Amino acid sequence: MICEIISVGTELLLGNIINTNAQYLSQKISELGFNVYYHSVVGDNMERLIEQIKLSRSRADIIITTGGLGPTDDDITKSGLCGALGTELVLHKESLEKIKRFFNRTDKEMPEINIRQAYVPMGGRIIENNNGSAPGVIYEDKEKIFILLPGPPGEMKPMFDNNVFPFLKDKSNSIIESRTLKVVGIGESSLQVMLQSLLDNQTNPTIALYAKVGEVHVRVTAKTDNKNEANYIIDRMIEKIRGILGENIYGYDDDTIEGTINKLLQRNKKSIAIAESCTGGLVSDRLTNIPGASDSYVNGVVSYSNEAKIKILGVKEDTINNYGAVSNETAAEMAVGIKDISKTDIGLSITGIAGPDGGTREKPIGLCYIGLAFKNDVYTYEFYFNGNRMKIKSNASTKALDILRRFLINLY
Amino acid sequence: MICEIISVGTELLLGNIINTNAQYLSQKISELGFNVYYHSVVGDNMERLIEQIKLSRSRADIIITTGGLGPTDDDITKSGLCGALGTELVLHKESLEKIKRFFNRTDKEMPEINIRQAYVPMGGRIIENNNGSAPGVIYEDKEKIFILLPGPPGEMKPMFDNNVFPFLKDKSNSIIESRTLKVVGIGESSLQVMLQSLLDNQTNPTIALYAKVGEVHVRVTAKTDNKNEANYIIDRMIEKIRGILGENIYGYDDDTIEGTINKLLQRNKKSIAIAESCTGGLVSDRLTNIPGASDSYVNGVVSYSNEAKIKILGVKEDTINNYGAVSNETAAEMAVGIKDISKTDIGLSITGIAGPDGGTREKPIGLCYIGLAFKNDVYTYEFYFNGNRMKIKSNASTKALDILRRFLINLY
Repeated sequence: MICEIISVGTELLLGNIINTNAQYLSQKISELGFNVYYHSVVGDNMERLIEQIKLSRSRADIIITTGGLGPTDDDITKSGLCGALGTELVLHKESLEKIKRFFNRTDKEMPEINIRQAYVPMGGRIIENNNGSAPGVIYEDKEKIFILLPGPPGEMKPMFDNNVFPFLKDKSNSIIESRTLKVVGIGESSLQVMLQSLLDNQTNPTIALYAKVGEVHVRVTAKTDNKNEANYIIDRMIEKIRGILGENIYGYDDDTIEGTINKLLQRNKKSIAIAESCTGGLVSDRLTNIPGASDSYVNGVVSYSNEAKIKILGVKEDTINNYGAVSNETAAEMAVGIKDISKTDIGLSITGIAGPDGGTREKPIGLCYIGLAFKNDVYTYEFYFNGNRMKIKSNASTKALDILRRFLINLY
Repeated sequence: MICEIISVGTELLLGNIINTNAQYLSQKISELGFNVYYHSVVGDNMERLIEQIKLSRSRADIIITTGGLGPTDDDITKSGLCGALGTELVLHKESLEKIKRFFNRTDKEMPEINIRQAYVPMGGRIIENNNGSAPGVIYEDKEKIFILLPGPPGEMKPMFDNNVFPFLKDKSNSIIESRTLKVVGIGESSLQVMLQSLLDNQTNPTIALYAKVGEVHVRVTAKTDNKNEANYIIDRMIEKIRGILGENIYGYDDDTIEGTINKLLQRNKKSIAIAESCTGGLVSDRLTNIPGASDSYVNGVVSYSNEAKIKILGVKEDTINNYGAVSNETAAEMAVGIKDISKTDIGLSITGIAGPDGGTREKPIGLCYIGLAFKNDVYTYEFYFNGNRMKIKSNASTKALDILRRFLINLY
C-alpha cells in the first residue's frame, strides 16, 4: 500500500510552525509496512487543496491529511475533499452533541461557528476527538482511503494511535512488529559504537537509533508474516542488546524515565521529596506527570534564593559562604534537608548554574551538583551540561532522574 | 513570484528526521515578499524526483530543493534536475579543487566518490559551501529559477543566507512585514467571533489566527513596496485589535507569558513565591525558564501531600478537614503561607485534581483553585480544565500565570 501525507495550513507555508505531524505519521506508517512516497504541504486555499487531493489520489492508495478541521473560515479540508471527490458535507448529529458536551464541561456555550466541525463528507465515518473539538474523518471510496486528522499534534497523535493505526493495521498483509528500547546516560555516537557489530549485520530484525532529548531510542523491527515469529526474532535481538547496554536501558516503548521511577518507588515502597535550584521545579514537574505519583512523591521545594535554602531546607549559612550555593556540600545538605522536613525515605537535590548569567571561571554555566540522601547516607555528583538555559535545565533534570533510577534499581 | 520547496530524502519519508529546512526557507521567502504555495518531500527515487520537479516547474517561478547533493549513489538531485529539464551534468573544475581543499583542511584525502559533487547542470552556477563538501547550484532557464541546496541545516542555512537571499532579494519588488499578537484567556472560536468584523474585511493587512497550547496567536501581515508603509499599516490594525482584546494580549512576536510576567515583576519591583499542588512544579519551572528570573522568583514549594501543606506552608489542619485540600480556602492559605515563609511581595498558589484518579462527583477531575496573596489581601479563583493529566497541568499552569499577569498589569 502506498500512502501520501498532505498537511494543510498556510502557517506551515509561512514557516510559522514546523511540520511535526508528517514526521510522526511517516514513522507510524513505516511501522505498518506501508510506503510513503510523498509529503505535501498546501495552504488554506480551496483550489490548490483540491488539486493536491486529486494528485495524491492518482498516485497513492491511502491519503492522510492533517489540519484544516477547525471551526473557522480558513479550515477547509473537509470541503476540499468533497470538492475533489464530487461529494458533499452532511451534519453528523452525534458529533454535534459531543462538541456541545466538550464546551459544556468547561461551563461554556458552544460558539455558533463550531457547528461546522460536526459536518462530515457524505458516507464518511467520524473519528472521535477526546482532546479537542474537531472530529476526524475516515472516508473510503471504491479504491482509495482518505483519513482526515486535526492539526494540533496533541489531538492528532492520540487520534491516530487509538483509531487510525488499528484500522490501517487490518489492511496490511505483512506483519511488522517493533519494540523500542529506551536508553539514558549514553550519547548516540557512543551507543552506535557499542552496538556496531549488531548494526553492521542487521537484516531482519533491523535496528535503528533515534537521538531524543536527553536519551536515545533503539528500535528493533521485524517483518514477517506472523506475529509469533516477529516477536521471537525481536526478543532474541533485545536479549543481545540488553547484554551490551544493561542498566542504561530504562524501559521499553511507551515507558518514560519518570514512569519507571514511579514504579520503582512503589515496588520498593519508598517515598521521595525533591529540592531543586537550577532546574526550577522541572524535576518535580516531570515526576508528577505520572498518574499515581502522589503515592510516593510527597513534597518539593524550589529553593532559588540562598535564604530559601537556609530557612526552609536548613542548609547551613556557613556551607553556602564557604563552598557556594553551587557545590557538593550545598547539594548534600539540600538532599538531607528536603528528606528531613518532608519525612521521606529519599531526598533528591540539584543545584547549578543554568545561565545565561551567573557563570564564573571556576564555576561556569552548566555546572550542576546532584545530591541523593537515603537513611544516614548522602551521595553527591558533579556534572557539566552544554547548551542554553532550557537545555541545561532539561539535561540536568534528566540526569537527576537517572541517578535516582539507578539508585532505586540497586536497592533490591 | 511564486516559490516552491522540494525536500529530497527518503529519511524524511521514513520519519527519521524532521523537515526543518522547509520551515526555515518558508520564513525567509515570506520575508522577501514571495509566496510559497506548496512544500513537497520526495524520496531518493529518480522517477518520482523528475515528476516532482516537472510539476513544481509548471506551477512556480522559483523552485528550491534541499538535500540529495552528497557523494553517494542515493544523492540524485542534480541528475534529477537534468532529467526534468533535458540537460546534462558537466565537471566544474574550481569546485573540484575546492572540495579537495575541504578534505585537506581536515588532513584527509578526498574520497574518489566526492568527485561527483563537482559536477553541475550545464549552464548552472555554483554556490560555494563553506561548511561542507557539497556546493549548491543556481540554474536559470528561460523563465524559471532552480536553486539546489544541501540537506544538512548547518550547510543549507548559511548558504541560503549569504548567497541565495541576496540573489532573490534583487528579484523582489514587494515587502512583507508581519507581527504576531499573543493572546491568553480566550479560545480560538471566541477570538474569531470578537474579531469577526476585522476578519471579514481583511485585505491588506491580512489577519490569521493560530491556536497554540493554552493561547492563541493573531498574525497581522502587510504586503507593500516599502517597509515604512508596511509598518504603518500593521500598526493601525494592531491598534484596532488592541481596542477589542485589551488585556487579553500578553505580548508580541517572541514574547512568552513567563517573559512578560518576569518584566512586570521587575518593573514593579515585586518578588514572588509559588505554592503548587496539582501542577507539580510546572508553574515554577515555567517562570524559571526566563533568564534573570532569580531577580524576582525567590522560592517554590510543591506541597503534594496534606502534611507538606500543613507543616511547610502553614495551612490549618482544620481548613483541609473542613473544606478539603482542593478548595478556595486551602488555596488562600497556601498563597498566604508561601508568601510569608518566603518573605515575598506576592504568593501564588494552585491546588486541584489532575487525575486520572482522585475525582469525585462534587470535585471532579480538572477542578482547580488558584490563590494570589498580596499585602493583606488574598484572592481565589475556581476553574475546571478538560483533558488528561498533562493537559490539565499545562492549562492550569497557564491560568495561574495569566492571573498573576493580570494582577501585575493592574498594580500600576
